[in-house]
Amino acid sequence: MNDLAGLEAFANVKRLIVVAAHPDDLETMCGGTIALLVAQGVTVFSVNCTLGDIGTQESGIVRPALAATRLAETDDAAQVLGIKQTYNLGHHDGELEPNLELRAQISRLYRITQADALFTFDPYWTGQIHPDHRAAGQAALDAYMPSKMPLYRPEQLSENGAGLGCLQKIFLFSTDRQPNVFVDVNSVYGTKIAAALAHRSQFPKGEENLEWMKTLDTLAGAPINMTYAERFKQLDVW
Amino acid sequence: MNDLAGLEAFANVKRLIVVAAHPDDLETMCGGTIALLVAQGVTVFSVNCTLGDIGTQESGIVRPALAATRLAETDDAAQVLGIKQTYNLGHHDGELEPNLELRAQISRLYRITQADALFTFDPYWTGQIHPDHRAAGQAALDAYMPSKMPLYRPEQLSENGAGLGCLQKIFLFSTDRQPNVFVDVNSVYGTKIAAALAHRSQFPKGEENLEWMKTLDTLAGAPINMTYAERFKQLDVW
Amino acid sequence: MNDLAGLEAFANVKRLIVVAAHPDDLETMCGGTIALLVAQGVTVFSVNCTLGDIGTQESGIVRPALAATRLAETDDAAQVLGIKQTYNLGHHDGELEPNLELRAQISRLYRITQADALFTFDPYWTGQIHPDHRAAGQAALDAYMPSKMPLYRPEQLSENGAGLGCLQKIFLFSTDRQPNVFVDVNSVYGTKIAAALAHRSQFPKGEENLEWMKTLDTLAGAPINMTYAERFKQLDVW
Amino acid sequence: MNDLAGLEAFANVKRLIVVAAHPDDLETMCGGTIALLVAQGVTVFSVNCTLGDIGTQESGIVRPALAATRLAETDDAAQVLGIKQTYNLGHHDGELEPNLELRAQISRLYRITQADALFTFDPYWTGQIHPDHRAAGQAALDAYMPSKMPLYRPEQLSENGAGLGCLQKIFLFSTDRQPNVFVDVNSVYGTKIAAALAHRSQFPKGEENLEWMKTLDTLAGAPINMTYAERFKQLDVW
Amino acid sequence: MNDLAGLEAFANVKRLIVVAAHPDDLETMCGGTIALLVAQGVTVFSVNCTLGDIGTQESGIVRPALAATRLAETDDAAQVLGIKQTYNLGHHDGELEPNLELRAQISRLYRITQADALFTFDPYWTGQIHPDHRAAGQAALDAYMPSKMPLYRPEQLSENGAGLGCLQKIFLFSTDRQPNVFVDVNSVYGTKIAAALAHRSQFPKGEENLEWMKTLDTLAGAPINMTYAERFKQLDVW
Amino acid sequence: MNDLAGLEAFANVKRLIVVAAHPDDLETMCGGTIALLVAQGVTVFSVNCTLGDIGTQESGIVRPALAATRLAETDDAAQVLGIKQTYNLGHHDGELEPNLELRAQISRLYRITQADALFTFDPYWTGQIHPDHRAAGQAALDAYMPSKMPLYRPEQLSENGAGLGCLQKIFLFSTDRQPNVFVDVNSVYGTKIAAALAHRSQFPKGEENLEWMKTLDTLAGAPINMTYAERFKQLDVW
Repeated sequence: MNDLAGLEAFANVKRLIVVAAHPDDLETMCGGTIALLVAQGVTVFSVNCTLGDIGTQESGIVRPALAATRLAETDDAAQVLGIKQTYNLGHHDGELEPNLELRAQISRLYRITQADALFTFDPYWTGQIHPDHRAAGQAALDAYMPSKMPLYRPEQLSENGAGLGCLQKIFLFSTDRQPNVFVDVNSVYGTKIAAALAHRSQFPKGEENLEWMKTLDTLAGAPINMTYAERFKQLDVW
Repeated sequence: MNDLAGLEAFANVKRLIVVAAHPDDLETMCGGTIALLVAQGVTVFSVNCTLGDIGTQESGIVRPALAATRLAETDDAAQVLGIKQTYNLGHHDGELEPNLELRAQISRLYRITQADALFTFDPYWTGQIHPDHRAAGQAALDAYMPSKMPLYRPEQLSENGAGLGCLQKIFLFSTDRQPNVFVDVNSVYGTKIAAALAHRSQFPKGEENLEWMKTLDTLAGAPINMTYAERFKQLDVW
Repeated sequence: MNDLAGLEAFANVKRLIVVAAHPDDLETMCGGTIALLVAQGVTVFSVNCTLGDIGTQESGIVRPALAATRLAETDDAAQVLGIKQTYNLGHHDGELEPNLELRAQISRLYRITQADALFTFDPYWTGQIHPDHRAAGQAALDAYMPSKMPLYRPEQLSENGAGLGCLQKIFLFSTDRQPNVFVDVNSVYGTKIAAALAHRSQFPKGEENLEWMKTLDTLAGAPINMTYAERFKQLDVW
Repeated sequence: MNDLAGLEAFANVKRLIVVAAHPDDLETMCGGTIALLVAQGVTVFSVNCTLGDIGTQESGIVRPALAATRLAETDDAAQVLGIKQTYNLGHHDGELEPNLELRAQISRLYRITQADALFTFDPYWTGQIHPDHRAAGQAALDAYMPSKMPLYRPEQLSENGAGLGCLQKIFLFSTDRQPNVFVDVNSVYGTKIAAALAHRSQFPKGEENLEWMKTLDTLAGAPINMTYAERFKQLDVW
Repeated sequence: MNDLAGLEAFANVKRLIVVAAHPDDLETMCGGTIALLVAQGVTVFSVNCTLGDIGTQESGIVRPALAATRLAETDDAAQVLGIKQTYNLGHHDGELEPNLELRAQISRLYRITQADALFTFDPYWTGQIHPDHRAAGQAALDAYMPSKMPLYRPEQLSENGAGLGCLQKIFLFSTDRQPNVFVDVNSVYGTKIAAALAHRSQFPKGEENLEWMKTLDTLAGAPINMTYAERFKQLDVW
Repeated sequence: MNDLAGLEAFANVKRLIVVAAHPDDLETMCGGTIALLVAQGVTVFSVNCTLGDIGTQESGIVRPALAATRLAETDDAAQVLGIKQTYNLGHHDGELEPNLELRAQISRLYRITQADALFTFDPYWTGQIHPDHRAAGQAALDAYMPSKMPLYRPEQLSENGAGLGCLQKIFLFSTDRQPNVFVDVNSVYGTKIAAALAHRSQFPKGEENLEWMKTLDTLAGAPINMTYAERFKQLDVW
């Protein structure tokens, strides 16, 4: 098991943007790593592409009401983790498409946040059964190059504080394709759980609804002797 | 002023469907006529194509929360007027398009409600400056023919209680193109106002926010000596 | 009743293209005029934008089978009328949209047929309740200008026999907006009926299914003392 | 001929935006009025929705090269007329669609320019045979309401100098639907011609290519005893 | 060669849905396995996303006629195999896209059939040169999650007999990515051939047109000592 | 290192089509191989899907002007390499989508050029960070099958010299997925550089801007003891 990195993989990261699909993706997929990075002084921005507005098994709720609830829960979780700002791109849950509109929305956030690193779903993991996850990851990758070009959607560069995209590092989560960064999140696991539980609509019974997450993090850590790990695949970019 | 009709224009109507663009359109455009028809035993269905989710001058509110509020207000207003059921098609305010998806959604409701008459915006009034109003009216007209054909979106006919579309009469509101039905709504004007005011987010100061509506209804009634009138243009269909 | 023309309105027409929505539109709307023009030596091309594939009240038939039947019926009717060639653009009945694809398809036929005159639905008649009729007419008008420009879809100009569009006259049918050309079709009414009846799937009971057409043609002729008339509105073009 | 206005119809206009389809539309349709308004101190913004990139009968030129030429000509003409700024929305000539993207682009310019008045094509004139003209006019009208709402495309409001749309008056050109503003442009006709001729690619033979424009302006002026007039239809808005 | 399964991989399957692209895909890709499962009492539903309407090298046939032929052949083949019901989603051959419409159509069938297992094309096999095959497989996977959520396209749940999607197992065919289920279809190979040959338009010369299929099935079986095998890759789902 | 081929992999190629995304892709990715093949008498066609119109870090240039420059540079480079004909599909840089329109455009060129071999980007290389590259490669593969079917876009077959698609071999470039063809381009490296430098807008400082290309080609050659190599992955097709 050579060539694996830990938290040091993010050594030079100063401004991190996380592009996820639904409220609670960030928290459950990489909430521990986020907590560690925030503690190190990294500024973190959270982007959810969808409103998470089909995220329930109850049929009595209307979608906009569920969306409003989830937006509020997102902000609560962000406070737990110390995330600087959250963005929601307003798409409908279960129907996210990696199209030019989504690409432009994400490019705009690369330019506004001036993030130097990206966390997103691995769009190429063939076991990824949720189409929104693939779409979010694909669009986040597709926005990388255009965001750096001044003639791409130049109106985005007129916004206050915006500059050309300056991402330099990309890390993919939710992947089985030879992840090469394993972060020991044991020390912040309570924070991770607290952030996840801020999504009360998703985990109404509290920690007992998070067994699946603990299992995943345990499995991720097992081969490298960590109790709980989050893992990533760093993508080479040029 | 020959060939004008009053409430008798709706003499044979038993099941009426109203296709509007935003919560509060129905109430302010034809709330009085609806109240009169409900009183006569007509079953009324209300359809709003959009969520009304940009309907505010406050920028501090998030769109799904505004949408949720307006859905609730719609149901409150429906209770005031005695509307049997309300439907919201979930499109975004300010961006309604009269496309095939909207046509199919409306066709479905013609088939489920088994309505025999339609009220909708006049899509051909060249003074109609709101694009959502034109879009709602156009799509409502465009759905008329297909809804009657069994091979058009046949899955809609598998739903409980659905049958082929059976609309027979169409009346257009919000029009200056020689309206030919004028309804005296004086006797139910209090109800109309109450229904409109159920949209608290739109008329936070109460009746004082409805002066424009009273003016329109007064102007509509003036040529035919009514205090308050609502007017329609009946469209010949085949 | 000044400024009305008869068949002489088409005096210089040599190659006529008719853009309709469904098989049987041409025959029932202007089959008589077509018969008269063919007799005068005009070359006529027929374009149906849709397959007419929801044109039945029977639900036991599958759409492609109905489409295949209607294509065959179209050719039968064309033979009755002496139409040189028929084209079907393959869109689905009840769902025709006047988009860029349809515009390009029609432009291509203007260029291939080298037609000098166009018959199509009046897209601006506000009584036109069939959305396919409006769509066909709108797209046919919208294709007029681009078809004349060499940089518009230049690949169309590489086809055998194609040249720049050369339409010079446009006549709209199915309109109540002050039609100004009335054609006496009494002498060819038998041919018109025969052409319409070639659409056996639509008029299974024969002539008795065509009472509505006779009524329309009678009403069209009444103000100008014709037994049966077909009427058009000539559009000024530049 | 009552109720007609002249230049005084624009008395309170301070910032005017003109939404046209192609380079040279503004100059030939209302170049005289623009010259008069600029002379009165009105700030004028010019928007062309398309690149005008099929605007030639020569087939040897490539479209981007023609587009680049026309952008340069647009700026030359703007200098002749004293237009403050020109915008081109980058769509392809002959294929403009009045869709949500175009609506948003125009809304953005209403917000950035803070224009109080709009000139655009009448999208409802049934003699308008150019689809781009209708599309530009329709989209310009459709953008009016949304541009005033803070939750519509809020990122536009983050740009430097942008505010909510504040259009108050709309005037339609290229219309035969009872125009009610006639501007005597005789005194600035030389300027109008000079502005039009800046579009050298369109009028390579100079003034002799502008006979059609002079004819239109002469016909417009005839009923009201002006040598050359430009005419508009003011649209009531609310 | 460990961890390989045979027919027992389908031990608990009771209701199987097969999502293919063209008529004849099911028969030639997994007709043998279907025959074995039907014999075991499994209820099988067949879905073809396209009409197969370019499936010919003859240019004299019109597409709807070919489509009608292929629909009939599909039913004939289904009878040979004992398939309970066939569905065709009506898309055009050679132009299938894995978009939201297709996802919704497939979700609807998961809900109506209450299938517990899915067979479809492997959309991730990089040797898959037919775009329709990839599109069908991708859309079938993408529909898995949404079909289980009550707020996704809730109108589908109003149809007679529909319930939430309840797929539990997914098996991919037409794949070279480490297939792990190999079914010995030797005992039913005659049935497989008969089912394939029901597609007379595709295999007009009979069995001699099926040499390619026999070769594929022979190659699939070779490494595990079967005469003819069909192979699948089971996808883990959560 | 078995099973690797060199230039002999293209032994039977007579007409080669290269589908790239931007002007300069062909030259820098496989310019050496092209030079060698042209010298052997192969006829080469070059297709760029986009105009390359955001390909600059200068913000003062307008996009159509940059596009026009790049079209001219493409032709200059083609002359250096001896390419027979160049095509540009006119899409915008940074926004290429592998949709049905692009598929049809590429199919048309397969049919017009009668190419027997294809070079294109590997759309499946997960390190491919440029979305246009993936889109071009995907669309080029997706066009392979349909181009061979007479009922797919039959109007393409009416163009002068067109026939059914007859591609037989496909080679993917820009890939790390086990390339299996390595071409020694040392002998023509000067030509490759000259062709690349014809794109003056991209490499304004001349050869010093091409260090990255030399590095890639050096790395490609290292394992097989070539100074400069270009590498490909041959795709099996059926």
